[in-house]
Amino acid sequence: MSHDIRIITPVTTHGIRSLEDVRPYERGGVRFSHALLDSGPVSIESEFDEAYAVPDMLKRVAEAEEAGCNAVIIDCLGDPGLRPAREIASIPVLGPGEISFHTAAMLGQRFSIVTVLDSVKPIFRNNATLYGVANQLASIRVVNVPVLEIEKDLPRIHRLLAEQALCAVREDDAEVVILGCTGFCGCGSVIEAKLRQETGMYIPVIDPIPLTAVTAIAWVEAGLAQSKRTYAQPVKKPMTGYALARSA
Amino acid sequence: MSHDIRIITPVTTHGIRSLEDVRPYERGGVRFSHALLDSGPVSIESEFDEAYAVPDMLKRVAEAEEAGCNAVIIDCLGDPGLRPAREIASIPVLGPGEISFHTAAMLGQRFSIVTVLDSVKPIFRNNATLYGVANQLASIRVVNVPVLEIEKDLPRIHRLLAEQALCAVREDDAEVVILGCTGFCGCGSVIEAKLRQETGMYIPVIDPIPLTAVTAIAWVEAGLAQSKRTYAQPVKKPMTGYALARSA
Amino acid sequence: MSHDIRIITPVTTHGIRSLEDVRPYERGGVRFSHALLDSGPVSIESEFDEAYAVPDMLKRVAEAEEAGCNAVIIDCLGDPGLRPAREIASIPVLGPGEISFHTAAMLGQRFSIVTVLDSVKPIFRNNATLYGVANQLASIRVVNVPVLEIEKDLPRIHRLLAEQALCAVREDDAEVVILGCTGFCGCGSVIEAKLRQETGMYIPVIDPIPLTAVTAIAWVEAGLAQSKRTYAQPVKKPMTGYALARSA
Amino acid sequence: MSHDIRIITPVTTHGIRSLEDVRPYERGGVRFSHALLDSGPVSIESEFDEAYAVPDMLKRVAEAEEAGCNAVIIDCLGDPGLRPAREIASIPVLGPGEISFHTAAMLGQRFSIVTVLDSVKPIFRNNATLYGVANQLASIRVVNVPVLEIEKDLPRIHRLLAEQALCAVREDDAEVVILGCTGFCGCGSVIEAKLRQETGMYIPVIDPIPLTAVTAIAWVEAGLAQSKRTYAQPVKKPMTGYALARSA
Amino acid sequence: MSHDIRIITPVTTHGIRSLEDVRPYERGGVRFSHALLDSGPVSIESEFDEAYAVPDMLKRVAEAEEAGCNAVIIDCLGDPGLRPAREIASIPVLGPGEISFHTAAMLGQRFSIVTVLDSVKPIFRNNATLYGVANQLASIRVVNVPVLEIEKDLPRIHRLLAEQALCAVREDDAEVVILGCTGFCGCGSVIEAKLRQETGMYIPVIDPIPLTAVTAIAWVEAGLAQSKRTYAQPVKKPMTGYALARSA
Amino acid sequence: MSHDIRIITPVTTHGIRSLEDVRPYERGGVRFSHALLDSGPVSIESEFDEAYAVPDMLKRVAEAEEAGCNAVIIDCLGDPGLRPAREIASIPVLGPGEISFHTAAMLGQRFSIVTVLDSVKPIFRNNATLYGVANQLASIRVVNVPVLEIEKDLPRIHRLLAEQALCAVREDDAEVVILGCTGFCGCGSVIEAKLRQETGMYIPVIDPIPLTAVTAIAWVEAGLAQSKRTYAQPVKKPMTGYALARSA
Repeated sequence: MSHDIRIITPVTTHGIRSLEDVRPYERGGVRFSHALLDSGPVSIESEFDEAYAVPDMLKRVAEAEEAGCNAVIIDCLGDPGLRPAREIASIPVLGPGEISFHTAAMLGQRFSIVTVLDSVKPIFRNNATLYGVANQLASIRVVNVPVLEIEKDLPRIHRLLAEQALCAVREDDAEVVILGCTGFCGCGSVIEAKLRQETGMYIPVIDPIPLTAVTAIAWVEAGLAQSKRTYAQPVKKPMTGYALARSA
Repeated sequence: MSHDIRIITPVTTHGIRSLEDVRPYERGGVRFSHALLDSGPVSIESEFDEAYAVPDMLKRVAEAEEAGCNAVIIDCLGDPGLRPAREIASIPVLGPGEISFHTAAMLGQRFSIVTVLDSVKPIFRNNATLYGVANQLASIRVVNVPVLEIEKDLPRIHRLLAEQALCAVREDDAEVVILGCTGFCGCGSVIEAKLRQETGMYIPVIDPIPLTAVTAIAWVEAGLAQSKRTYAQPVKKPMTGYALARSA
Repeated sequence: MSHDIRIITPVTTHGIRSLEDVRPYERGGVRFSHALLDSGPVSIESEFDEAYAVPDMLKRVAEAEEAGCNAVIIDCLGDPGLRPAREIASIPVLGPGEISFHTAAMLGQRFSIVTVLDSVKPIFRNNATLYGVANQLASIRVVNVPVLEIEKDLPRIHRLLAEQALCAVREDDAEVVILGCTGFCGCGSVIEAKLRQETGMYIPVIDPIPLTAVTAIAWVEAGLAQSKRTYAQPVKKPMTGYALARSA
Repeated sequence: MSHDIRIITPVTTHGIRSLEDVRPYERGGVRFSHALLDSGPVSIESEFDEAYAVPDMLKRVAEAEEAGCNAVIIDCLGDPGLRPAREIASIPVLGPGEISFHTAAMLGQRFSIVTVLDSVKPIFRNNATLYGVANQLASIRVVNVPVLEIEKDLPRIHRLLAEQALCAVREDDAEVVILGCTGFCGCGSVIEAKLRQETGMYIPVIDPIPLTAVTAIAWVEAGLAQSKRTYAQPVKKPMTGYALARSA
Repeated sequence: MSHDIRIITPVTTHGIRSLEDVRPYERGGVRFSHALLDSGPVSIESEFDEAYAVPDMLKRVAEAEEAGCNAVIIDCLGDPGLRPAREIASIPVLGPGEISFHTAAMLGQRFSIVTVLDSVKPIFRNNATLYGVANQLASIRVVNVPVLEIEKDLPRIHRLLAEQALCAVREDDAEVVILGCTGFCGCGSVIEAKLRQETGMYIPVIDPIPLTAVTAIAWVEAGLAQSKRTYAQPVKKPMTGYALARSA
Repeated sequence: MSHDIRIITPVTTHGIRSLEDVRPYERGGVRFSHALLDSGPVSIESEFDEAYAVPDMLKRVAEAEEAGCNAVIIDCLGDPGLRPAREIASIPVLGPGEISFHTAAMLGQRFSIVTVLDSVKPIFRNNATLYGVANQLASIRVVNVPVLEIEKDLPRIHRLLAEQALCAVREDDAEVVILGCTGFCGCGSVIEAKLRQETGMYIPVIDPIPLTAVTAIAWVEAGLAQSKRTYAQPVKKPMTGYALARSA
């Protein structure tokens, strides 16, 4: 059995996502593929950015299903377009925010998110409310670094993330930490090690893209996708100004 | 003092909104203006439709602020783009869903929504959760008529709305009814009269566009707009494929 | 069309409310009138005070409806007697607490109240729970000044309110501030300017009486009042020791 | 040790409460005393009725404390004046609604209330929300009999209560039943027997006054009363039109 | 009438519970008896400890009912085995955690727990959620003393409890304090006096075992027990490795 | 890389779980192993049964970790012993109830459980509350067949499950269905096909053991386990009457 899982990064910036991050999970016939946007923002740091990312992302989702992919991952922790994507797709569509928030809620009683900028906090708060885990959200902390500057000085990012993660544990009583931007991909183990060193115990640090990648495999293998009673296929009608993918 | 309130109907269908619906509220220097989309769907009946409505709608919001408008109303009960619109605007942006749900929660303990199609129910449920009034949402009922067919046979619409509103009161214990589509504008008093005739008492029927129009005047007069701590102005950055309005 | 909106201040202290506060909103045939109590407390700072304010206030509500008023505003942020008043009245009865809490919940994600004394905090907490917005209540802070001393040194009040409002924003993560006593009427713009000066951004400061006045106009114009399924007209029966208004 | 527990029936109707209902619990030095109102309604069936009951009831509460009583019970399931009474008293003040709702929440997962009239349903719903047990309230059902007619035909009341209690169990999935008016005092065991006969199992039927009586003894013996951090003693100030008890 | 209330301490440590703690409540025919475990932990400080306490405790519950007891109290604030015990018993089974949390929710708006060790915090948080009072739980604080060391230096325990209780009031805004281990039995009045001395007001301090003892008497006198619709009698079937009591 | 995932069926009945159910997921070095109890119930249908299952199950969990397993699955939808097992283990411990409830909450807005007997409904309701998804639980329906009779007539089970699943969708508005007993393992696709045939759309049917098996692989591959801040390792102390596994 072979499974193709398509990761769609909902921005136009090349090089921001490497499939190397998920290669270790390509076992037993699973492989990952990737798509970027032609139209949309260079990075997502507000609901304004999300709004311009979604139309082209929906086209990529439709293309992925047409190309025979078995699942789609939206590569942004704000889960932009998760619900409309689920409406047009029969294959499962996963948002790393939804997967990470629910998984955090299972691994402990209270979780914190360490993210890039204050401007994304309302997005995560709203999503925590929608997903039903708002009571378990201990805090959202920021390192105050824009998405496109994360790669410029990774040691500094590691230090800032570790500092805020430790504050979340000590001051906000967090028991699980979520890296609050898919751009932090790969930083999880460093922060976990730092927390262990400081607190003497294992505190899970969720790296959303790897977690969502393995959960996508799990859903595909279990034969599960979003309910079509919740996410009904939209009726076809004119959509001026947009070239829709065939299946949408 | 003069106030201009811009109603933006987030679809491309001409003639779907007439300013006659709100003319009665144009007192004391207030006037309403209207805008439609160039790009987007012909009607909104899913999150898919919403996704394609938002980019051009945000352009209209920015244009409204540039043109000196004092407030913007998004003319769709699903409140598409409410949050990104609030990010780019300094003037208040009102969603008829948010205004109607909160007002219903003040006029009674439990409210029902009577809307067009099953496909919009998840949108309203999510918004009721986000707005904090999910516990007061008694039910969502549908008349099973697409948005663009509402105008074709208004007496039938009145009959169907009244039937479902009455079921909401009798079977779901609703105490307030919201007309679940801004396309039902003008039907409120007919349904309210029908409910009074059947139950012998006054049960409020919220007609979202008139209510949002008068609330917009109220907010403008009270000098209130969305908090910039919640809805921070987005940082300017490249947005491939979209011609943004100047102020966005 | 002409509308008379009656503001009932539920205390016996003359001079505590001037209609000058709402004159700016008397446009297009709207006018405000005012009533005080003959029996009751000199100010409201506890549920004990509220208990003694309500009977005579209900009489004033009945008189207002008999006099042809179109709406009634209860001039106290604790909304004393809001529900019994809605039972006896067909015209809409508005509580500035309910209007302010719901409006704050729409303008941002988290709001704080800056009020007079610790003794009113449980009233506001209970009301936030009843109105469904408890999860959005960031904090309640006090300036520690009794109601009847507010007018004695307004510059000091401005300073104290601004200090606490700023703490609410910085320490409690408030995004909207409500002036926590209708006796602070008129202080809103001063505090808003102070917050803007300190934080560099617009943070809404809700001045409850002006907001409730314009919302009352909105409800009257939209033809809305409390549901009689929630607030049924009480059955007439003997009420020893009280001279009821005719309509009660 | 001797304890005097004062039951205050917040209406003016003589003979509506007999201490015989609680005599069986007068063990070990405990005794019950009773007070009625001079001013107020003949029965409580709305928030309007409650409003007129509270001032004189507060006077009775103050008198009870002055007379050396050890606890006060407000003899109405709507708990009118519970919070202001707790402000003026140092001795514990118990509301049968609060005690019954919390006890029901402990005896099973879901409870229903069988009460007199539709007009009291919003009171109980609001109290369930305030007391934190709204999620466990399965339903409120009515026998459609005014309070003052309960005594006229007790066998009919038993039959009506049993019918509605059985519907609550079978249709609303109730696991515990609360008699929804303190005027039903004494009917508990009849209804419980009827439920056992029909369902073959023990389903608790809470008779609020006996339960509150024994809980009052429990609180007195445990030395517990309401927190003065929640219910601060009101500051003394003029209260026009009311002769307050000394201690208030 | 005579009532026997059995307190079962779900550990194997002799001398950890003296009936002297509840002797003062043995009035009017009520008497308390006591049982310990033969198998299980020496103290309960984790869910692991609870798991090994429950089987033998259930045997003791069945024995208590067979012996004619009228109620059972599980002597541990975590309420281990409360629900299975209610399944096998017809007599009421009370957990001091459930009784204390609900009573605290009635005596004020927000309560804190001062307990032994961090390891029991998740148990109390989960129980607060299950019991419906999580929104009223202000904080859980610890004195960092294992259960079996409480008796070694009571003056130190008093000092530590008073310190943390005061912090709960001042920093966490607690209005009621619960002693967070039944091993603290008898410390309530000392801590209450200390809080009164420091804050100048009465703040209830709940001592769980005395409160549960008097509440058990109340339930027995009111003829109430857990609903058999919630806690159905388990079907008899083989249980390898355990000698069950006859009635289980 | 090789992973061993131990499924522990917390009953003493041989043959109730076959590893054939999870063999299809043994790809890329993953393999499943299985353990039963020596002491405990023959099946789990109450909290009483759970109580006797947990001690020996904890021993099996400790043995699994000692044997080098990478994760443990508790093979019962009630998740008995999930929390104490997480305390003693460093490897992830998964409960099919927790995994299924959270996954259902992600696949749609409302889910129903179709289970064996009424006696397990309170367990699932409590767990839905604890896991934070109670608002999304549409209903729990039963087929009224004891666990040990499921295998006796599978076609009848399929018919009963399909009937109740369809009722859940049509009457309770469920959008996702969970098979409410791990003994129904393998029935998922039959019920899903039946729902598709009747409703014409894809409605996910969660088969808990397969879903938990693939999720366990996902967690192991992502390097995640329960937080030791939530589930601290219990302190070693005497445990009379039980032979603990070495690592416990």
